[in-house]
Amino acid sequence: MNLIEETVASIAPLDETAMRDARDLQARLTKPPGSLGVLEEVSVRLAGLAGQCPPPLPEPAAVAVFAADHGVHAQGVTPWPQEVTAQMVANFLAGGAVINAFAAQVGADVTVVDIGVAAELEEAPGLLRRKVAPGTADMTAGPAMTAEQVRRAVETGIEVARDLHGQGAPGGVGGRPPSNGQGARCLLTGDMGIANTTASAALIAAFTGLPPERVTGRGTGIDDATHARKVEVVRAALDRHGLLEGHDRAPMEVLAAVGGLEHAAIAGFVLGAAALRVPVVLDGVIAGAAALAAAALCPDALGACVAGHRSAEPGHGAAVESLRLRPLVDLELRLGEGTGALLALPLVQSAARVLHEVATFDSAGVSEKDAGRP
Amino acid sequence: MNLIEETVASIAPLDETAMRDARDLQARLTKPPGSLGVLEEVSVRLAGLAGQCPPPLPEPAAVAVFAADHGVHAQGVTPWPQEVTAQMVANFLAGGAVINAFAAQVGADVTVVDIGVAAELEEAPGLLRRKVAPGTADMTAGPAMTAEQVRRAVETGIEVARDLHGQGAPGGVGGRPPSNGQGARCLLTGDMGIANTTASAALIAAFTGLPPERVTGRGTGIDDATHARKVEVVRAALDRHGLLEGHDRAPMEVLAAVGGLEHAAIAGFVLGAAALRVPVVLDGVIAGAAALAAAALCPDALGACVAGHRSAEPGHGAAVESLRLRPLVDLELRLGEGTGALLALPLVQSAARVLHEVATFDSAGVSEKDAGRP
Repeated sequence: MNLIEETVASIAPLDETAMRDARDLQARLTKPPGSLGVLEEVSVRLAGLAGQCPPPLPEPAAVAVFAADHGVHAQGVTPWPQEVTAQMVANFLAGGAVINAFAAQVGADVTVVDIGVAAELEEAPGLLRRKVAPGTADMTAGPAMTAEQVRRAVETGIEVARDLHGQGAPGGVGGRPPSNGQGARCLLTGDMGIANTTASAALIAAFTGLPPERVTGRGTGIDDATHARKVEVVRAALDRHGLLEGHDRAPMEVLAAVGGLEHAAIAGFVLGAAALRVPVVLDGVIAGAAALAAAALCPDALGACVAGHRSAEPGHGAAVESLRLRPLVDLELRLGEGTGALLALPLVQSAARVLHEVATFDSAGVSEKDAGRP
Repeated sequence: MNLIEETVASIAPLDETAMRDARDLQARLTKPPGSLGVLEEVSVRLAGLAGQCPPPLPEPAAVAVFAADHGVHAQGVTPWPQEVTAQMVANFLAGGAVINAFAAQVGADVTVVDIGVAAELEEAPGLLRRKVAPGTADMTAGPAMTAEQVRRAVETGIEVARDLHGQGAPGGVGGRPPSNGQGARCLLTGDMGIANTTASAALIAAFTGLPPERVTGRGTGIDDATHARKVEVVRAALDRHGLLEGHDRAPMEVLAAVGGLEHAAIAGFVLGAAALRVPVVLDGVIAGAAALAAAALCPDALGACVAGHRSAEPGHGAAVESLRLRPLVDLELRLGEGTGALLALPLVQSAARVLHEVATFDSAGVSEKDAGRP
C-alpha cells in the first residue's frame, strides 16, 4: 500500500463505548443535563475519537497554513495580484498577520507549508518547504493538477499532520511554543492563496452536486461583475471536466480536475489527523472543500473533524451541511488563514476540559433536581 | 450625590474619534477590508470605550459570580431545591464547577459574590461576603426587595467592579491568577441562584413590554406543566405590580418589584465597568435582564457591554435585541454561572489584539487589491 491507502486503512470509526461513557459522565456532572448545548456533543466526539473518556486535552495546538497559487487566477476572478500569496506568507513568517495575533491569543503554534506558491520561498523558521508545483494550471483550460501532483500533495498533508503530532511544530512562528514540549494534540487547518475560493467553489459544486451559483461567493470581497464572472468560470471548469451535473469520478480525479494543491494537502492533513486520532479543527470554505474530498476518500475521517466557524462564503454552508458538521463560531468572518479555526480552539478545549475537571453531583455534595417537584 | 448617581454621572458615550481611528486602522491592516466581520465592530467599540486606538488589551479578566436566592422559588417554578444555590457556591469555591474549568482554559479569575444567598456562608478564598438579604421575598405576594435593598445591591455591584479593577481579583479561585499583577481590565458577569430565570423573565417583560409567554423559558430544564406554571407566576407578579402592559415606573422600582438581588448587583457591576471604561462581557439571560436595568438607568452604560453568548432562553433573545447587542457565541448553552461570557472572552481579546499586532499593507510590503482589475 502507498501512504494514502495505508492512512485510510488505519482510520477507525468513533468508539461507541467511549462516547457512551462521555454521555453518562456529562449527565452526572454538576450542571443541568444538556446545559452545555453543542459543547457536550463536541466532548462526546472527542472521547469517541480518542477511544477513551475523558479524552486527552486537545493541547498543545498547531495550525498548518497551506499556501498555494492557482492557475485560474488568469481568468480574472479576483482583483488581488497573485504576488500577494507569497507576500502574505512572508507576513505570516514575520508574525504580522491576523493569524499570528489570534494564535498568540489562544496559545497555538503556526507553521506555514509551501505546497504550491508560484514563487521561490527562502528557508525561514516556521516555513516547511514542500512545494509540489509552483501553482496549479488553469482549470478552465485543462486539469488543474496531474494525478501525480495530487498524490504528492495529499501525502504531504498526511506527513505534515504526523510531523506536527510527533515532534511539535518544527520551528513554528507567531504563537506561543507548545507548552509541554510534546507534539500537537490538536491540529488546525489554515490556507493562503489568491483565487482559492474559486477552486473551492468548483470542488464544493463537484462534491455536493449543487450548481455553481449556489456555492460561489465573493471571497475576499469582489464587485457584482467580478462575481458574475467567477460563477461563469466555475461553471466552465466544471463543464469542461464533466463535473457539472452528476458524475462518477473518483475523489482524487475531482481534485486533479478543479482543486488546488492546498485542497489536496488539507485533505491529506485531515486523513492524517484521523489516523492519529487527534481532532482537526477546520477553518472556512477552503477547508470545507478539502474535507469533502477527505470524506469522499474515507467517510470515517469526519469523526476527527470539528467545524471551527461558519464562513460568510455560501459554498461553506453547503459544505458543512453536506458533511453534517455544526460550526462553533459564526461571526461573518471571511479572512481564511486559519483564523476561524483558531477562534474556535478555546471552545473545543473547554469542552474537553469539562470531562476532566468538573465535579459530579455525588462528589460535590450537590442535590440533584427533585423529580417529584413541583 | 450617592454612589449610584455619581457613577452614572461619570459614564461617557463612546469616543467617536477613537472609533474612527480604529475603523481607519482596520482598513489598513493586511487583510481584506471587513473580513473579520463582527470582530471588527467589537474592536471599534473597545477603542471607543477606552477613548484610544488601539484600546488596551482586555486582560487580565475577572468574572464575578453574583449568587442569590429568590422568594418566588416557593411558587414551584423549578424542580431544584433552593439549597442548591449554596451548594453550587461551595462547588465554585472548591474549583469543581464548569465555570472553573472554563476560567482555567481562558485564563480568567473567578470571584463569587454572596449578594443574597439564603444560607450563612463561611469565609473562604474567592468569596466576597456582601449579603444584602438572605434572598428576595416572593414577588407574587409583594415586592421582591425594598428600595433600600435594591440600592445597596446596585452599590455593591459598582464596588465589586471597582475592587476587581483596582486590586486584581481579591483571592479569586479556579482560574489562573491575573498574569501581570494588575487589576482586571476585562470584567465578566456570572450568576447563581435557583429560580433566577423566573425573576429574569419578569424583568425582561417589564423592561421590553413583551408578554410573559414570549420571555419565559425552561431555565435549567423543566417539563411542560412546570413551564406553564412559571409563565403564570411571571404574569401574576407583573400584574400585581402594575407592570403587565406598559408602565412608567423607574428602573429601581422595577428591580424592587420583580428583580433579584443579583440582578440589581449585576446592573451596578455594568455601571461600574462603564464608569471605569473597561469592557464587561455579559453572560446569558440573568445578565441580559440586569443590563436592561442598567441601560434604563444610564443608556451610555451599554457602550461597555459585549454580549458574550446567546442563551437558549427566549427572554435572552428579547433582551439582546432590545439592547441592540450581538452575542458572540451561539451554542445553545443554558447553564449560567458566567460560562457563556468566558467562552466569548478569547474572541473579545483576539479582536483587540488585531489592532495591536497586525501589520499594515505598507509596513508589511503587501500589495493592495488592484481597483482597476479585473
